[in-house]
Amino acid sequence: MNYKMVGRFLAQILTVEGVFMIPAAVISFVNGEIHALQAFLWSLFAICAVVILLFLACRDTKTRFYAKEGLVCVGISWIVLGLLGCLPFFLSGEIPNFLDALFEIVSGFTTTGASILPEVESMAKGLLYWRSFSHWLGGMGVLVFLLAIIPAGGRGSGYTMHILRAESPGPNVGKLVPKMKDTAKILYLIYVLLTVLNIVFLLIGKMPVFDAVCTAFGTAGTGGFGIRNDSIAGYSPYLQNVCTVFMLLFGVNFSCYYLLLMRNLKSVFHDEELRMYLGVVLGSIALIVWNLRGFYGSLGETIRHAAFQVASIVTTTGFATTDFDLWPSFSKAILLSLMVIGACAGSTGGGLKCGRALLLLKSLRRNIRKVLHPQKVQIVRNNGQMVDEKVLENTNAYLAAYVVIILVSFIVISLDGFSITTNISAVFACFNNIGPGFDAVGPTCNFAGYSPFSKLILIVDMLAGRLEIFPILILFSRSTWTHG
Amino acid sequence: MNYKMVGRFLAQILTVEGVFMIPAAVISFVNGEIHALQAFLWSLFAICAVVILLFLACRDTKTRFYAKEGLVCVGISWIVLGLLGCLPFFLSGEIPNFLDALFEIVSGFTTTGASILPEVESMAKGLLYWRSFSHWLGGMGVLVFLLAIIPAGGRGSGYTMHILRAESPGPNVGKLVPKMKDTAKILYLIYVLLTVLNIVFLLIGKMPVFDAVCTAFGTAGTGGFGIRNDSIAGYSPYLQNVCTVFMLLFGVNFSCYYLLLMRNLKSVFHDEELRMYLGVVLGSIALIVWNLRGFYGSLGETIRHAAFQVASIVTTTGFATTDFDLWPSFSKAILLSLMVIGACAGSTGGGLKCGRALLLLKSLRRNIRKVLHPQKVQIVRNNGQMVDEKVLENTNAYLAAYVVIILVSFIVISLDGFSITTNISAVFACFNNIGPGFDAVGPTCNFAGYSPFSKLILIVDMLAGRLEIFPILILFSRSTWTHG
Repeated sequence: MNYKMVGRFLAQILTVEGVFMIPAAVISFVNGEIHALQAFLWSLFAICAVVILLFLACRDTKTRFYAKEGLVCVGISWIVLGLLGCLPFFLSGEIPNFLDALFEIVSGFTTTGASILPEVESMAKGLLYWRSFSHWLGGMGVLVFLLAIIPAGGRGSGYTMHILRAESPGPNVGKLVPKMKDTAKILYLIYVLLTVLNIVFLLIGKMPVFDAVCTAFGTAGTGGFGIRNDSIAGYSPYLQNVCTVFMLLFGVNFSCYYLLLMRNLKSVFHDEELRMYLGVVLGSIALIVWNLRGFYGSLGETIRHAAFQVASIVTTTGFATTDFDLWPSFSKAILLSLMVIGACAGSTGGGLKCGRALLLLKSLRRNIRKVLHPQKVQIVRNNGQMVDEKVLENTNAYLAAYVVIILVSFIVISLDGFSITTNISAVFACFNNIGPGFDAVGPTCNFAGYSPFSKLILIVDMLAGRLEIFPILILFSRSTWTHG
Repeated sequence: MNYKMVGRFLAQILTVEGVFMIPAAVISFVNGEIHALQAFLWSLFAICAVVILLFLACRDTKTRFYAKEGLVCVGISWIVLGLLGCLPFFLSGEIPNFLDALFEIVSGFTTTGASILPEVESMAKGLLYWRSFSHWLGGMGVLVFLLAIIPAGGRGSGYTMHILRAESPGPNVGKLVPKMKDTAKILYLIYVLLTVLNIVFLLIGKMPVFDAVCTAFGTAGTGGFGIRNDSIAGYSPYLQNVCTVFMLLFGVNFSCYYLLLMRNLKSVFHDEELRMYLGVVLGSIALIVWNLRGFYGSLGETIRHAAFQVASIVTTTGFATTDFDLWPSFSKAILLSLMVIGACAGSTGGGLKCGRALLLLKSLRRNIRKVLHPQKVQIVRNNGQMVDEKVLENTNAYLAAYVVIILVSFIVISLDGFSITTNISAVFACFNNIGPGFDAVGPTCNFAGYSPFSKLILIVDMLAGRLEIFPILILFSRSTWTHG
């Protein structure tokens, strides 16, 4: 393990976090929120101290940097980001319990959107901004951001690739351009562009600037922290529809946008994952609209709510315009299944990902064919290209890890005595980075009722879900720390 | 597809079913249950007719018999066994709805034990016997039984093996002895022996003979149909403990008993699956006893109920001595997880199977190691022997199929409007062949409330669960019927 390299990387990541904390401090200053401003300044001081210590301790690094270091870097970075990022909430006294503050900011960075706050409107503006911004930073990946801005000189060639692979969602990261560093840049450019577009559309609908920026952060990161107690329900139908469209847009694989920019329409149109994603979204909306007939006043209202909730859940955002816990079982079952599937790989959404689900289905079909025709060689194809057996193997291992983690978490948090529905949906909502679940953690409720131990488990679930399990799992593996 | 061979096989299977129906008819005759006796005679007549037609239509068969034919044989046989086996319930008028009768007998053959009957004590003895006997026949596999008794002469060499593989639970069927036919015989010999032993122990506890035989059938097949409305709760603590012990014994891989008979104690002692099974059972009992402190009068009573319920759920039997739906969430979460894991491969129990869970965990660990040390070749071992990559691949495909089927079934039966807990646990209980679930399908309730369509889905789930998915799945695959 190249500890010094990891330490240096950590210092850089924390610098990014510190720099991005400054606007939040300014907002608190402008709004005269003294307690919040003080908290931000102390937090910045703490971050500076850690960064300086790390830089001093980790001079003269070797450049050896493999997949293992990449995974460990990502895993540790996210934990430390959370520990220091929660300080403003804690030090300002707005979330007096440290674990609750950690839960809130990890929920932010992982774009989960699960909250322990019973209401948010009384919170200082600066803190609200920081809470929503954590979604934006976590959505595309803070390490990817770092890769996009720092010079790569002098580092091992695998460096950028290993980080990008470990932090980006989905079964495999496609190289958009030959240099991975440029890929990171392009991804962030598209991300910024779409976010700005989202803000503009919200402003057109007469949403206040602060609301528009925070809502766009929550949408872009597919996070789901709102700045109003009723989430998005209080805004006009036009604004709700804007959110629906942009949530769905941020659930699309960002490579598709790159291909669009390159005017390669054909590849986008034939992308199997995109087709599945659109099919799942439209199918779910149709089924829920049918199931909800008579539930709302008009068909238009039904479609609006159905589309919004489907977009919010499938992209694992977690905004709500209505209390879907009151919907009939069939609609709830569809939403629960959407939680499992999730959006596209390479988007900011969580869950298993459509692409991975597609691979699992295809490898299943392959296995049935193998039984029927043992002599024939059976190949799994994706977008016409042969899929490497290694990718299939990893996808299957991912599913196994997914099931194991969900089962164990479910058992442990059941100790708190909530209902089976509450516990299952809480684990799903955290692990898949969605936010609200059903029953006692439904869209109108929050996670404050869980014990500290359960919150810790759910924090680990959120991190494991966002980082796709392995960067967190290997931190617990003995052989990560023993060999070399 | 060698249709004639499949047809001939079906005729033989139905002959077995018919022969085993005769004792049930005799019991009805002795007890003077005229309507039941008539129903049995008509059912036997129907079976005879079908058998004769099949034999006439399927003369002069080719001997070509591959894995595909084996799977199709098993899939179709079980469906037809259900369709004809439910006739006594239907024709006697005791279950006036045909689909309900089918649900009940498929639940019997698949050793699920889920019932649509609100109470069973008023049922004719002959029908109760047939209901419980279906567990015994389905437990070890009716096709395996056929293999054990019929002469194998003149058939392709793969014949016996393909059937045995397709019908037996677990990731891979070990050859106990060089000839598969002898393996089938040995398995049934052990099965009969253990069942007799179970009956003897129950009789020692002064259980009436009829009760003892039926209860032993339900235990041996890990089915769970009781002949009393309160399942096993009304019997003495001694009898409950006998059930606990025998349920656990029938959840052990039968190869272990064969090895015991061969005095190969070392292999049994070092069997990793057996160790995991015992660890899971003892760990679960300990945790539930701890969680239930103060719930029952004494520690002894708590241990008895905890051990019984754990044994009943992990072996997927489904007997109950207490309404575990009233237990605290943590205990319920453990039971729900046990439903997923299940007993040992090569036992009569259902679920994912400990052996398969072990393989999944090992292949997961292998994948983590692969990420950490890409250069090293990583091998998965089981009981010290290298596991074939094909077995790992199939195990992973099995998990994928498992997740897909459960999700789809869950969504579809949600249309009936029951709670999420009810629907999830209903699907789990049927697919894993357990029987009772939670909430509206809890141990004191039944499945009668579901719509006909949902019942059909659950019937398919029970069959898919018992036959480990693939024999049922390939019946829906186009390429099964098109090529050759």
